[in-house]
Order: sequence, then C-alpha cells, then structure tokens
Amino acid sequence: MSDSISIKPIGTIHCELNDPAATPKNYDESEVIGVIEIFPEYRDGLKGVAVGQKVMALFWLHQAKRDILQVYPRGDRSRGLTGIFATRSPMRPNPIAVSELTVLNIDGTRLTVSGVDVIDHTPLLDLKRKI
Amino acid sequence: MSDSISIKPIGTIHCELNDPAATPKNYDESEVIGVIEIFPEYRDGLKGVAVGQKVMALFWLHQAKRDILQVYPRGDRSRGLTGIFATRSPMRPNPIAVSELTVLNIDGTRLTVSGVDVIDHTPLLDLKRKI
Repeated sequence: MSDSISIKPIGTIHCELNDPAATPKNYDESEVIGVIEIFPEYRDGLKGVAVGQKVMALFWLHQAKRDILQVYPRGDRSRGLTGIFATRSPMRPNPIAVSELTVLNIDGTRLTVSGVDVIDHTPLLDLKRKI
Repeated sequence: MSDSISIKPIGTIHCELNDPAATPKNYDESEVIGVIEIFPEYRDGLKGVAVGQKVMALFWLHQAKRDILQVYPRGDRSRGLTGIFATRSPMRPNPIAVSELTVLNIDGTRLTVSGVDVIDHTPLLDLKRKI
C-alpha cells in the first residue's frame, strides 16, 4: 500500500521555543518545560496518564523539509553524508518526532511536561505509555 | 492547527504475522523476524543503517480502530477502563506504532529485522536512529 494516509492532530504544545535552530536536538538533551494541550474531543483518552510518568509523544514537525534523504548529522561535515533513516534529523519524508517527556502537572486536558524538543505550536499526533 | 496532514508510507514489512490477535503486543515481547522493504525512491536515506543496530520504526496500523478512547488493557477487565493515551493499544485516533527492531541483514532496500510486532504488509512511515 502506498496510498496517502490522513492524520489529524490530537493536540498541540505551548512552549518558549520558537527557533528550530535553537531548539534542543532531542528530548534527552532538553530541560525545557512546556504545556501539551489535548483537544477536548480526546479528553477521555487521558484517563490513567499521571503526574510523574514518562510518556511518549509523537509530534508532526510542520516546518521540516520532507524532500531530503541525506544530511550531515548536526552539520558536522567530518562525519560525511548520512541517510536520514540512520539519524534523528527532523528532515525526512514523514517528519514525525518521537519524544519522551516527563509529566509534571495535569490540569484537565493540559499536561505540563519537561524534556520538550519541539517548537511552540507543533501539532501532536499521539501520546503513549513509554515502554 | 487541526488541519489534516497527509502521510505517504516509505515502505512496508513482510512477515509471518497475519492475525492481529496473535501478534506480539510489543517489540520487547517479540522474537519474530521479518523483512522491511523500503520503497526504491527512499533508498538514499538508508546510508548509515548497519547490521547489528537497533532502529526505531514507525508503522501505520492500517487495521486499527480510530474511534476508541478507552480500553481494558490487554482485555483485563480487573484493571478498569484506561485512556488509550496511557496505553500502547493499537486503537487510537492516529494508530502509529513505535517499534524498536534489530537489523540482522541488509540487502539493498530490504532489511531483515527481529522484534516484529505488526502484521504482514503494515505500512512503514519512518525509520530512525534509536536513542
């Protein structure tokens, strides 16, 4: 199957990050705190999400280029061009980021989380239990 | 932003699993071996993916129900209804699975992997370096 798939965000994130170049490269290098807002129609899906948990969040990197297949990882040309499937580059055919965030507070459909590595207003596609 | 996003699979998987009910619940409970086929137009993105690596694979669970927000985890009613965002249930508004697979062999655009927890012909959306 290579038909197009339609995805609708389930929420968004609010945080201080606005410049992709100044955003932490990955969640394990971030101490940034932000607020995930789940859209009201998905509220029932949050039952069981609790303060202190690590959760897996899938974001749609809406500003990322989708037509690039090789990059210099972190701009370091000494390491040579690498295929994007061997990297965590935001540039890829389907720019879906996987973050592991710690839940600090829950207020209805708003989750305060730490470890944010995406910019303000990045669409959220999914939230999962971390294995 | 709550507009719809369009995603095109970058590949598919070939494996012996056909019945979702008999498929391992997660990659960490699976010893199933399968073959990921990357579509030819994305071949350059594989440079740097190597035998022995663990890779993160994002699959589109094309048979999963998308209109369910609470489940009994693993059918166990004693644990009560849980929000799908607190689980790894395949049922969720955007049924994207995150697997960690071990690369056993590479033949062009075909990667033999272990740890498969999705059925035969599940569309592949992305492949990433595992953190």
